[in-house]
Amino acid sequence: MMQNNTKELIFYTNPESRARIVRRMLEEVGVPYTTKVLNYKGEMKTPEYLKINPLGKVPAIQHGDLVVTETAAICAYLADQFAEKNLAPPIDSPQRGTYYRWLFFAAGPLEMATTAKACGWNLDENRQMIGSGTHDDIVAALELAISKGPFICGEQFTAADVYVGSHISWGMHFKTLEERPSFKSYVERIEARPAAQRATALDDELSN
Amino acid sequence: MMQNNTKELIFYTNPESRARIVRRMLEEVGVPYTTKVLNYKGEMKTPEYLKINPLGKVPAIQHGDLVVTETAAICAYLADQFAEKNLAPPIDSPQRGTYYRWLFFAAGPLEMATTAKACGWNLDENRQMIGSGTHDDIVAALELAISKGPFICGEQFTAADVYVGSHISWGMHFKTLEERPSFKSYVERIEARPAAQRATALDDELSN
Ligand SMILES: N[C@@H](CCC(=O)N[C@@H](CS)C(=O)NCC(=O)O)C(=O)O
Ligand SMILES: N[C@@H](CCC(=O)N[C@@H](CS)C(=O)NCC(=O)O)C(=O)O
Repeated sequence: MMQNNTKELIFYTNPESRARIVRRMLEEVGVPYTTKVLNYKGEMKTPEYLKINPLGKVPAIQHGDLVVTETAAICAYLADQFAEKNLAPPIDSPQRGTYYRWLFFAAGPLEMATTAKACGWNLDENRQMIGSGTHDDIVAALELAISKGPFICGEQFTAADVYVGSHISWGMHFKTLEERPSFKSYVERIEARPAAQRATALDDELSN
Repeated sequence: MMQNNTKELIFYTNPESRARIVRRMLEEVGVPYTTKVLNYKGEMKTPEYLKINPLGKVPAIQHGDLVVTETAAICAYLADQFAEKNLAPPIDSPQRGTYYRWLFFAAGPLEMATTAKACGWNLDENRQMIGSGTHDDIVAALELAISKGPFICGEQFTAADVYVGSHISWGMHFKTLEERPSFKSYVERIEARPAAQRATALDDELSN
């Protein structure tokens, strides 16, 4: 089998998108990768790119023959492939449950609640069936997620912090998530990381 | 450290809920667990249960001291903890990327698109920003997910099939997801498994 570090890693992105989260993860992992910027105008909707992601969206990565889409999936995949970087709890540790819990919470309920806020959808009407709960429930859950601190899995910084931290930061920025002092100090901790700063600099440069 | 099989495993559920998916996973894993049924009337909203899940929802599990919520997270956690059951690809295999891709796809875009259909939310208006894509995009992506067959990761049946398979089945049943012959035959394959049949029997009995 080919070594991970000999397989080409391609990153499909647009600097004005959720792909910024993947860029942070790539910089945390610290392996070389090739960046392909796609514009929103049509490059995400070519027949060639729709084979990579039928949703016609970024981010996506290609690692050797494998394609992975979905921001959280890419983060979790990179953490497992480059296990020596310690960006996920060991597979047999209980922390793995906490790690998955908050990754899936952010990809599901948090995404839904913030999108609902942005689009004016009512989450209260059918609350029993809607998988996210209300905005207040989401805030309570996030408080729990970061209460152990400094990171979601305690002392270990993981891909869950890359993903959840970016969501909290964006949510507060776009006013789709309530601002809280605890959220702010968590986000500051995440964004102070050298990898996060490198990632932001690279994407800011691309957006200019 | 305590052995997995000596830690108590508690399953918080209601037979009329997404917790049926976790029951399938528990039956695939095949370890003993204690079932606690919570009604929708108030048992999911007691202060005690809100400490387990601040969303006040089922499913949740407790494994020793650890709590895991979010259906997909519970499936992924159980697959890793009971790795000898081969319900996830090996951590260093490329299949792990495919596994995460479709688990997160179902927890995010698929949940959002089927909920939008049920609630009459418009996904086309703000499609660039909404993480799910349209209903047609979702169908195209699911066709890709199951195209390698017989299972999402090819020959290996995994927790991704438990989760995605249940979503497809429910979506077609509740008319929130288009019916397709390929979806139907995939679902039949998943539901024919002895563990799925045991799980359904146990939950059907509870709902009576
Ligand atoms: N569920 C996906 C959402 C990705 C997504 O919605 N990307 C947006 C930019 S943030 C996009 O590419 N939109 C283009 C379009 O839908 O036309 C993920 O988490 O990666
Ligand atoms: N995102 C959660 C959704 C769980 C959920 O929405 N459960 C529903 C039943 S299917 C529930 O407990 N509703 C009760 C309520 O919200 O009051 C998951 O995937 O597990």
